Amino acid sequence: MSTSLDNNDIEEGLTFQPKFDASGLVTCVATDAVTGDVLMVAHMNDEALRRTIASGEAWYFSRSRNSLWRKGETSGHVQRVVEMRMDCDQDAIWIRVEQSGAACHTGRRSCFYRKVDAGEGGARLSFADAERVFDPKAVYRK
Amino acid sequence: MSTSLDNNDIEEGLTFQPKFDASGLVTCVATDAVTGDVLMVAHMNDEALRRTIASGEAWYFSRSRNSLWRKGETSGHVQRVVEMRMDCDQDAIWIRVEQSGAACHTGRRSCFYRKVDAGEGGARLSFADAERVFDPKAVYRK
Repeated sequence: MSTSLDNNDIEEGLTFQPKFDASGLVTCVATDAVTGDVLMVAHMNDEALRRTIASGEAWYFSRSRNSLWRKGETSGHVQRVVEMRMDCDQDAIWIRVEQSGAACHTGRRSCFYRKVDAGEGGARLSFADAERVFDPKAVYRK
Repeated sequence: MSTSLDNNDIEEGLTFQPKFDASGLVTCVATDAVTGDVLMVAHMNDEALRRTIASGEAWYFSRSRNSLWRKGETSGHVQRVVEMRMDCDQDAIWIRVEQSGAACHTGRRSCFYRKVDAGEGGARLSFADAERVFDPKAVYRK
């Protein structure tokens, strides 16, 4: 049972106690240590979090593949962690990274390559940065 | 059923088609438009997303309170959206915001006020920015 003492400890304490969700995951935001851009949003389970902290390189847990995943394992586009931050309620992680190549599997530097704008018939997307740093067909071919 | 044509449309198309999870939510990362710092990670349901786009101010959905929530409703610390971005698979939103006051309910500018560092006996937290912009007891008192 959660009490305000527990909450105070989680929010104000220095004990690392990630609050994993029902699937055993925390959300992780990776930003570019140089530009500050958000590169990607993904998830980490306990093992991914431990490996990231121990190795200084980002590991995630893929919900679609249901497996642990070292970022850049296939593409070579690893993320070196410059700094890791924890949020107030300890269910989200922010890592500032040096990104090799590109973060997005589509070949773009960031997964957030499209803008959302209000339109008359509802919201629309437009490309903010369509440029591909790599060709996903070449990188991910089997 | 998902096909590669669907995927291509989601990733390369300009149709706004957010992919809500089983709880009807997408993840939203808010960064400070000036400093680039991650301020908070929260969730939006369809209604929060629509209201954010229509009003230019951030609305979220609180999982703990199970309710729609205009950021700053109680505290006055609203977020004016400078730009909204969508990620490749359309299940995460990035907003760059002008933050009034502070984003975190603890009174700090950002929810990510603690660093995570590797230690001999496991990871430890340390304050990166302990300073409170406001006193939560004064702001949230009933």
